[in-house]
Amino acid sequence: MNVNICLIGKGIVGTSLIQILLKKKEFFERKFNINFVVNSIIEIDGALINSQGIDLKEVIDIKENFRRLPYWEKDAKFEDITSKLNIAICIETTPTNPKTGEPGLSHIIHALDNKIDAVSSNKGPLYLEYEKLRNLAKLNNCYLKYEATVASCVPTLGIKEALIANEIISIKAILNGTSNFILSRMTAEGINFDLALKEAQELGYAESDPTLDVEGYDAAGKLVILANELLGWSKKITDVQVEGISKVSSHTIELANSDGYVIKHLAIAENNKLIVTPRLIEKHSPLNISGNLNAMELQTNYAGPILLIGRGAGGLEAASAILNDLIYISKRRGYIT
Amino acid sequence: MNVNICLIGKGIVGTSLIQILLKKKEFFERKFNINFVVNSIIEIDGALINSQGIDLKEVIDIKENFRRLPYWEKDAKFEDITSKLNIAICIETTPTNPKTGEPGLSHIIHALDNKIDAVSSNKGPLYLEYEKLRNLAKLNNCYLKYEATVASCVPTLGIKEALIANEIISIKAILNGTSNFILSRMTAEGINFDLALKEAQELGYAESDPTLDVEGYDAAGKLVILANELLGWSKKITDVQVEGISKVSSHTIELANSDGYVIKHLAIAENNKLIVTPRLIEKHSPLNISGNLNAMELQTNYAGPILLIGRGAGGLEAASAILNDLIYISKRRGYIT
Repeated sequence: MNVNICLIGKGIVGTSLIQILLKKKEFFERKFNINFVVNSIIEIDGALINSQGIDLKEVIDIKENFRRLPYWEKDAKFEDITSKLNIAICIETTPTNPKTGEPGLSHIIHALDNKIDAVSSNKGPLYLEYEKLRNLAKLNNCYLKYEATVASCVPTLGIKEALIANEIISIKAILNGTSNFILSRMTAEGINFDLALKEAQELGYAESDPTLDVEGYDAAGKLVILANELLGWSKKITDVQVEGISKVSSHTIELANSDGYVIKHLAIAENNKLIVTPRLIEKHSPLNISGNLNAMELQTNYAGPILLIGRGAGGLEAASAILNDLIYISKRRGYIT
Repeated sequence: MNVNICLIGKGIVGTSLIQILLKKKEFFERKFNINFVVNSIIEIDGALINSQGIDLKEVIDIKENFRRLPYWEKDAKFEDITSKLNIAICIETTPTNPKTGEPGLSHIIHALDNKIDAVSSNKGPLYLEYEKLRNLAKLNNCYLKYEATVASCVPTLGIKEALIANEIISIKAILNGTSNFILSRMTAEGINFDLALKEAQELGYAESDPTLDVEGYDAAGKLVILANELLGWSKKITDVQVEGISKVSSHTIELANSDGYVIKHLAIAENNKLIVTPRLIEKHSPLNISGNLNAMELQTNYAGPILLIGRGAGGLEAASAILNDLIYISKRRGYIT
């Protein structure tokens, strides 16, 4: 069965998704008898449009020159094309704007208003307007999925289904790979924050303005989504008490170490409170992950702590999460039989 | 909606399940509008039977004297009662017989033959006759679920659904809490195998005959189920190359330690091979879990390694996994709307 897709954003995540869709075309046909037909790829200044399906190989091969393709329509916007194209699922992959959520927020609202199921790897709209978007999806009988927004390919949201009979009581997580990398290097090498940050920037793990990562806002946004999804809360990012790691000194790390502890940048949801803050954890705790991994520990009523660990970032990793959301929707819509 | 359940086995797992069913009765009614009615509890020498539903509180309160209850029918067997009682789902919790799988194997076959969905916490039948049971379930349009058989409450099997778009390439796991506890103690305290085993026995983590755990057969059985389920293989326990941990010396652990490694009892499925053996892993690997935890690392094509960690044993933990299987079946059968 053909399922028409509109991809919004041709950055790292969008391009990785196109690559995987190309590579896995046969796998999806064989395993699920499904063919994802991308009929539009939206960028900030226009769109690639072909109602019969865009040749994804051509788009990959031409790289950044895709605006030269004959089916590039300058200034075309997502909001303009939905009435002209038959779109079953839209995939929002534009970069997160932590203050407004735009343009992702408007894209998702427009999709749902037009009964188009939506998948988002853009977390801004979710942590800013979680409840509004969930209600809008419900009102329009649409699916809205966003596994990629928290810990990327790690199924931090999807695991809910496998634990459906459990009451999840609290969450303790490491949701930002950059700050975890910095703390890991400070711990392993005894270096100070500034040096570890510089190293992270040189390796491409930290951006030139690392504020969102090291001050905890990125983790706070993800924590809001996790808590709302797994604990059934209705929180916003302004409800999170946030403290960054820039004040953590090598001396503090040394002191912790001598008593068998390490310092981790934890995101915690418990007792109706959301907190992102540096905390001591025991060296032998499975949450003591090094490098730029992400981790989530769920406390449940009968299953005790359950941990999920994996890569929290990367284009292919996010695309992998998007694909799982696509298959989830396709199963429930009956596109897969 | 009422869903009739037959519970086979009133040991630790069965009794824990009864306790949770009692405690969560309201939760299930409120959240899923479902009421699990246990109309039969089968023991080796008879059964508690009440077609209207057994009073579970009474069964818990009377403890080991349940044979004195008026609805105890001596010598009644599962195979005899299925034609008289309306049973939607049977739950097999008898102890694992590693050689024959009995009586669990016959129970599951009888259930499926009679179009009764089955949930098993007994791994023997699954690792001995995986393919036969899967085929029988398919033939009879029945659900057969067994999340509790591998790492208990940790959703090692259920996670497949959340990763449905991924190709899982290989598995590396720690599936036996007893052998992991012993190796962890040998590593932390520098003690030898015999002393660590004795300690595990005193703490109740190891049985008086620890062969199945320390020689790797228990882990091998779980590995077979994992590989068949997640990788789509059709292996039997005789396909596993097994080596135990009883020959691991304190000296070997010391040597590994001086180079930054620890020794873990790994269960590995890769390149069409199943292996349970002591292996070196890096100290900083997230698989370096201590105590009696279980862990599973999946290698996927685009999501990299994804790890799940949690308690691999315990009555409540197994019951928690069984409940998730019950809800899974109930959703797909339309008992939950």
